[in-house]
Amino acid sequence: MNKSRLEAFSDGVLAIIITIMVLELKVPHGSDWVVLQPVLAFFMSYLLSFVFIGIYWGNHHHLLHTVKNISPGIIWANMHLLFWLSIIPFVTGWMAENSFARNTVIVYAVLLLVCGCAFTILQFAIQKANKLYPALEEAFGAVKRKGYISVICYTAAIGLAFVNTFVSGFLFVAVAIMWIVPDKNIEKALKNE
Amino acid sequence: MNKSRLEAFSDGVLAIIITIMVLELKVPHGSDWVVLQPVLAFFMSYLLSFVFIGIYWGNHHHLLHTVKNISPGIIWANMHLLFWLSIIPFVTGWMAENSFARNTVIVYAVLLLVCGCAFTILQFAIQKANKLYPALEEAFGAVKRKGYISVICYTAAIGLAFVNTFVSGFLFVAVAIMWIVPDKNIEKALKNE
Amino acid sequence: MNKSRLEAFSDGVLAIIITIMVLELKVPHGSDWVVLQPVLAFFMSYLLSFVFIGIYWGNHHHLLHTVKNISPGIIWANMHLLFWLSIIPFVTGWMAENSFARNTVIVYAVLLLVCGCAFTILQFAIQKANKLYPALEEAFGAVKRKGYISVICYTAAIGLAFVNTFVSGFLFVAVAIMWIVPDKNIEKALKNE
Amino acid sequence: MNKSRLEAFSDGVLAIIITIMVLELKVPHGSDWVVLQPVLAFFMSYLLSFVFIGIYWGNHHHLLHTVKNISPGIIWANMHLLFWLSIIPFVTGWMAENSFARNTVIVYAVLLLVCGCAFTILQFAIQKANKLYPALEEAFGAVKRKGYISVICYTAAIGLAFVNTFVSGFLFVAVAIMWIVPDKNIEKALKNE
Repeated sequence: MNKSRLEAFSDGVLAIIITIMVLELKVPHGSDWVVLQPVLAFFMSYLLSFVFIGIYWGNHHHLLHTVKNISPGIIWANMHLLFWLSIIPFVTGWMAENSFARNTVIVYAVLLLVCGCAFTILQFAIQKANKLYPALEEAFGAVKRKGYISVICYTAAIGLAFVNTFVSGFLFVAVAIMWIVPDKNIEKALKNE
Repeated sequence: MNKSRLEAFSDGVLAIIITIMVLELKVPHGSDWVVLQPVLAFFMSYLLSFVFIGIYWGNHHHLLHTVKNISPGIIWANMHLLFWLSIIPFVTGWMAENSFARNTVIVYAVLLLVCGCAFTILQFAIQKANKLYPALEEAFGAVKRKGYISVICYTAAIGLAFVNTFVSGFLFVAVAIMWIVPDKNIEKALKNE
Repeated sequence: MNKSRLEAFSDGVLAIIITIMVLELKVPHGSDWVVLQPVLAFFMSYLLSFVFIGIYWGNHHHLLHTVKNISPGIIWANMHLLFWLSIIPFVTGWMAENSFARNTVIVYAVLLLVCGCAFTILQFAIQKANKLYPALEEAFGAVKRKGYISVICYTAAIGLAFVNTFVSGFLFVAVAIMWIVPDKNIEKALKNE
Repeated sequence: MNKSRLEAFSDGVLAIIITIMVLELKVPHGSDWVVLQPVLAFFMSYLLSFVFIGIYWGNHHHLLHTVKNISPGIIWANMHLLFWLSIIPFVTGWMAENSFARNTVIVYAVLLLVCGCAFTILQFAIQKANKLYPALEEAFGAVKRKGYISVICYTAAIGLAFVNTFVSGFLFVAVAIMWIVPDKNIEKALKNE
């Protein structure tokens, strides 16, 4: 079983998820500047989700780059991840339409938490099917640490949403920035191979 | 004629089918928990169809992996399969909007039956254009047996929907589980080659 | 400039065009059998357009298979073809919503005519940039003959729609069948190379 | 990190952006010729945006063709470009629905300006990560010059929209034509390599 079709299919699904979100940006009636105001909440939440899916694409890319053997376990762990990621446009739209109301922020945080867990499951499935050399094992560990920090932040964001949704939003942005800052471990490990 | 474009096109269509289904998940008005209740039926049926299309992708992947020659017959058998699979989001949405009403469950079962037949036709087209060595022939046979069991289950699901739609739903899930359990025959056959 | 990205982009656009048409199949309200009746016209026109786009994909595939050099002219002739093909879902939906009313059938025939011309332009752009050996030249000629017959049929379909739209529909189906019957000339030419 | 997945993902997103725009072409009610009149503004703006995204695809294609090393900076500069391009269908739809009203033309021009800047940023990210040989450096310079002219034209289009939106539209078309005329510098540079 070759990994190129797994990558191609995942790329396709991720590209569609990231792009159909824009369909939630409904064209407003009229051309006055004021009609753009309700669009702003959509724009902000679209930007946030775009960055998150972009991060998942980048990490997915890195993760599969290291893989030699594709097991049925990897295929289904990958499907599982794509399923939860495909829900993001729906929850993003719900959050935007209600101007970041508490319940919507909670559901968004729960979804990010579930996606984070699904990604970790995919990592375990890959490690089970592929014997990693030590340097790569270390790099995997670094990504997992980031994953654990994310999961803690999302859990905190769920609790804190009951106090103040702005704090939750701040945590989302903080997690995104943590991931955007490039992780040189896997690349270094691959070069040292 | 090279098979990589056939795979790329099929991957594209399957990725789009699996993802546009999520557009049926209409963003509800309001942010109370209660507005999510009607979304639940959509979520369940989306999950079911996501798994079925995921299974088709996996099997399609396996099937084409074994192919050397692409005949016009294979191209059209593939188009025929993709056509019926592309109807799944529509029927899924209809079933969800009517909370698994009898008629919608019947149409869903009929569609799965037609898709199953289309997949078997594709298998025959591939076998006709490619001389398979004995081990692979055997593996093909195993997939076909699963296909026949599925077709019997779908037919039963159509009949049983007149009695109780829950039983039909149970049969859908049973078929899905049967397919998710990985089939090692093709892989083994390819390794032994 | 490599042709694999041209193929990948075209495959992506064609896969999306063929699949988003299904979004025109609006989920009907209620679960009585009678609500499916208006869906039937959509289903028929969806099937017709699916087959036409499938034919374009197959021919596009064949055509680019023969290409060695990609000129800017080929890129823009390809874009031009994709543009007109991307209008098909819109016209298909319009034709379906009005149950194959005269004007909609005329516009559909005009669009097929324009797509046919765009494909012929792409063929000329490819021939201009690539010196074809005699056998392939002959095969190209065969495809062009089919193209000319199609253009004549579409033109006739426009005129005949004023008399009887069924005759136009019959011509569409006839052209589709002519193309589905596989053309072995290019394949033979490539093998003889 | 390999560039083929970056290309595949970008191709996917661009193919979806260019195609979902057609979903803004809402099927009109009735089959009289007169119902097509409001569609005309959509058609014109769809054509314009289709050409612009086609140009971006062509240039993106050229640009990445020259790349050997993919840095995290390139990945994020690419994501940044795709984000702004993904807003084009929304703004196109808004402009079309309001028949090219002043504010909508201004927003369209601003968006094209931002996309142009994002493309230039991507060029700088590529140049930073890849040592270009002199001929290619020159070719890059030619593309950058075109980019600067575009940015000037877009800025002028913003200002001129307050006077006459037709002049802005004329500038959009002029920029598109400037880009469609093929730039032989990069190709020549690659051949001379």
